[in-house]
Amino acid sequence: MKNLPLIAFVLFVFFSCQQKQEKVINSNQLSPEEKIDSTKIKTLFNSVLTEGKSYEWLKGLTQNIGGRLSGSPEAQLAVEWGEKLMKEVGLDSVWLQPVMVPHWVRGEKEIATYTTNGVQKNVPICALGFSIATPKTGVLAEVIEVKSLDEAKALGDKMKGKIVFFNRPFDDTLINTFSAYGGCVDQRVRGAAVCSEFGAKGVIVRSMTNSIDDYPHTGTMIYGEDLPKEKYIPGAAISSKAANILSDDLKKNPNLKFYFKQSCKTLPDAPSFNVVGEIKGSETPENIFVVGGHLDSWDLGEGAHDDGTGVVQSLEVAYLFKKNNIKPKNTIRVVFFMNEENGTRGAKKYAELAKLNKENHIGGLESDAGGHTPRGFSIDANDMNTALLQSWKKLLAPYGLHDLDKGGSGADINPLKGENVTLVGYRPDSQRYFDYHHTSRDTFDKVNKRELELGSASMASIVYLMDKYLYQNETVKP
Amino acid sequence: MKNLPLIAFVLFVFFSCQQKQEKVINSNQLSPEEKIDSTKIKTLFNSVLTEGKSYEWLKGLTQNIGGRLSGSPEAQLAVEWGEKLMKEVGLDSVWLQPVMVPHWVRGEKEIATYTTNGVQKNVPICALGFSIATPKTGVLAEVIEVKSLDEAKALGDKMKGKIVFFNRPFDDTLINTFSAYGGCVDQRVRGAAVCSEFGAKGVIVRSMTNSIDDYPHTGTMIYGEDLPKEKYIPGAAISSKAANILSDDLKKNPNLKFYFKQSCKTLPDAPSFNVVGEIKGSETPENIFVVGGHLDSWDLGEGAHDDGTGVVQSLEVAYLFKKNNIKPKNTIRVVFFMNEENGTRGAKKYAELAKLNKENHIGGLESDAGGHTPRGFSIDANDMNTALLQSWKKLLAPYGLHDLDKGGSGADINPLKGENVTLVGYRPDSQRYFDYHHTSRDTFDKVNKRELELGSASMASIVYLMDKYLYQNETVKP
Repeated sequence: MKNLPLIAFVLFVFFSCQQKQEKVINSNQLSPEEKIDSTKIKTLFNSVLTEGKSYEWLKGLTQNIGGRLSGSPEAQLAVEWGEKLMKEVGLDSVWLQPVMVPHWVRGEKEIATYTTNGVQKNVPICALGFSIATPKTGVLAEVIEVKSLDEAKALGDKMKGKIVFFNRPFDDTLINTFSAYGGCVDQRVRGAAVCSEFGAKGVIVRSMTNSIDDYPHTGTMIYGEDLPKEKYIPGAAISSKAANILSDDLKKNPNLKFYFKQSCKTLPDAPSFNVVGEIKGSETPENIFVVGGHLDSWDLGEGAHDDGTGVVQSLEVAYLFKKNNIKPKNTIRVVFFMNEENGTRGAKKYAELAKLNKENHIGGLESDAGGHTPRGFSIDANDMNTALLQSWKKLLAPYGLHDLDKGGSGADINPLKGENVTLVGYRPDSQRYFDYHHTSRDTFDKVNKRELELGSASMASIVYLMDKYLYQNETVKP
Repeated sequence: MKNLPLIAFVLFVFFSCQQKQEKVINSNQLSPEEKIDSTKIKTLFNSVLTEGKSYEWLKGLTQNIGGRLSGSPEAQLAVEWGEKLMKEVGLDSVWLQPVMVPHWVRGEKEIATYTTNGVQKNVPICALGFSIATPKTGVLAEVIEVKSLDEAKALGDKMKGKIVFFNRPFDDTLINTFSAYGGCVDQRVRGAAVCSEFGAKGVIVRSMTNSIDDYPHTGTMIYGEDLPKEKYIPGAAISSKAANILSDDLKKNPNLKFYFKQSCKTLPDAPSFNVVGEIKGSETPENIFVVGGHLDSWDLGEGAHDDGTGVVQSLEVAYLFKKNNIKPKNTIRVVFFMNEENGTRGAKKYAELAKLNKENHIGGLESDAGGHTPRGFSIDANDMNTALLQSWKKLLAPYGLHDLDKGGSGADINPLKGENVTLVGYRPDSQRYFDYHHTSRDTFDKVNKRELELGSASMASIVYLMDKYLYQNETVKP
């Protein structure tokens, strides 16, 4: 063709410049056994990206059921949804583990407002989980801003009759946003309890996020068992943008009075369930490896990234094993834990029953850090098994899984911890997670299909490797 | 406090289980010089995450100006915006490079429809860049579906009077979505040209995306210099979902007639500009290192990820250098290239002037793969410099920058290529990119502030290292 040079130029631009080459492992660097593993892992990824189910499942859970706080009718629907789905996937057995869970309800939409310089401002707030209601007429009081629990304690009686405003923001310089969360969340969890002791009328807490926006982030708080109920004071989260504005307004007008009203309450514990299903191990079925996420979610959104994604990814691990005819040596048990958000009663019940039934748990994998693009796994294991998992880096790196560091696994599998139990937390990219976490924005549309599916295959890959290689050496059998 | 065990439990859950530890480099593993570099890189990241400007700049470019195709009034506004901003950042000198650019206009909103089984279906389409219009009454013809240019060519005269429908989808199993794009885009670029030769009445091309949705993706196509103008036929993109439906309908009803109408046209070339600014090198100012993205964008969206993000990140590199008092040895030149999307005339002009003025370009960095979370860089350099860049992995890995592979850099800096010129492409995560690319969805709200800023600091870090370490050895000075 006469116009070849032009075509060549065009193809050059598109194929050579813009394109990043697909990463492939140089198979010369792999042992024969590693070549088998590499091929198997590729099969898992190909399978999920062409015939994955998690996205469709997540749509059902989030859009048909939605937010599903422990004890709610929606949580019960989610249990039924989970049981039905596990059976559809064809797990060898599926059952429910009864567990009593806390039952807190939000009540009417919360209201908050204050007037400064003659301007009335409506403030986006939401009650914190386990908070008591305000009096029916609400709380109206002056505000004292603090940045920490210690600063609040140092106020002592000065906070009497006031609203304490916890306003320590996320440290934006921390690359991992979970680290920033860890550095701030004590204000939400313990703020009300600390200020109850000194007769404050209520606390409002800056939302747990890097983002500056109008969405309040709920989440659990705890008064503590030893605080008399009559001392309880209400706690609410305030959006990050409103927190900045209030802080500015307080500098100009320290005596402004803040009003808020909420009607939440804690009802008696309610019956609920963990949903459990398993693929029986072909060689050592008595050894159990758990893969799970939590079925409950906060009520404000649809519980998509927290933790609908973890739930559907966990089941997709089993689906991918079955679809690709992978028969695990050990029993792979999928668990949809109930009540991670406010009590972890499901996790405790699961561990309690495991002990009671003398079950031999060799390890677990939890997905509860959102459904974003894969980055790796966090390993909570003895040194030998940590080194073993880290030796799989070359098999996992082509899929963007570079992080294989020691660290925590997850709140739901953590009670299974033991010297020879290998616990792993799935770690997707964290940058967007706290834009949505515990807010009305945690909805299905924030989840990307491929990112979700790549997470499922990442999880299936490490479960495949752990099932194959953990505890081959009899001396370290748990 | 009496309730310490409970508090301990709560803190345990939040701090130990959910949290992934912030990654830090063990400074014992670093040489004294590497410790200095590590500290400097941390400073750049801290700086961008607390006082970054790129997000605010991007908002201005995308929401105040919006889509800015070469030759359009919006592209001219973008040039003025860029020049003003570079001056505000305080670059040592800022200038415009005149360049004549293609001037294609879309005209009225395109229409497409067909009727099958008595049901009329409206189809989301958009004209491809450089396509001619249909006749005013549109094109109505039977459709032949093909999966490749070769399959089309093999049809030969059978396509006469028909519409050829290119429907090869992305290969979803490719982890890097740019690889999938590279494997399909020939249909869009060359489909119409190939079918022009055999007397087809038009081509419709499946949109370049992994996503199945209703958004048609525009993009450039080329008839080729040797095809007589009277043979030109119109080309349009059809949404991926509509492509699937049409393909199904054709199986049931092979003789259905497809109708489409578009009124696009190519006007005479228009005057435009590259926007250029630089920080003069403190030691060897005659050595120039280019950092850039492209200022033009397709017209359907706001040109956010393609390539507003690359433009603002490139300028933020210079901003971060100035803010942190980093004085580069070599001249760092920021270039907002014009006309990457349909012609790369700005890139060619820049390289032409560099040659004419005997400028000594030692390297370049381009950001034109979206503004998502950082993954690494693609390196187009000689072996020695490739190895040098790869040796910085331990300094970059704490920021999620693990990919440092050989590969292309970018269409705008590629003309500067030479044996001793080190070209680098910034490579963010690719999973979401083709959800937005060249569509009406490529808007500001799809960009996450932290992901954007982390990209800027990633780029600033590698520019800092390249400025310091490239060509220390006189023998390889370009």
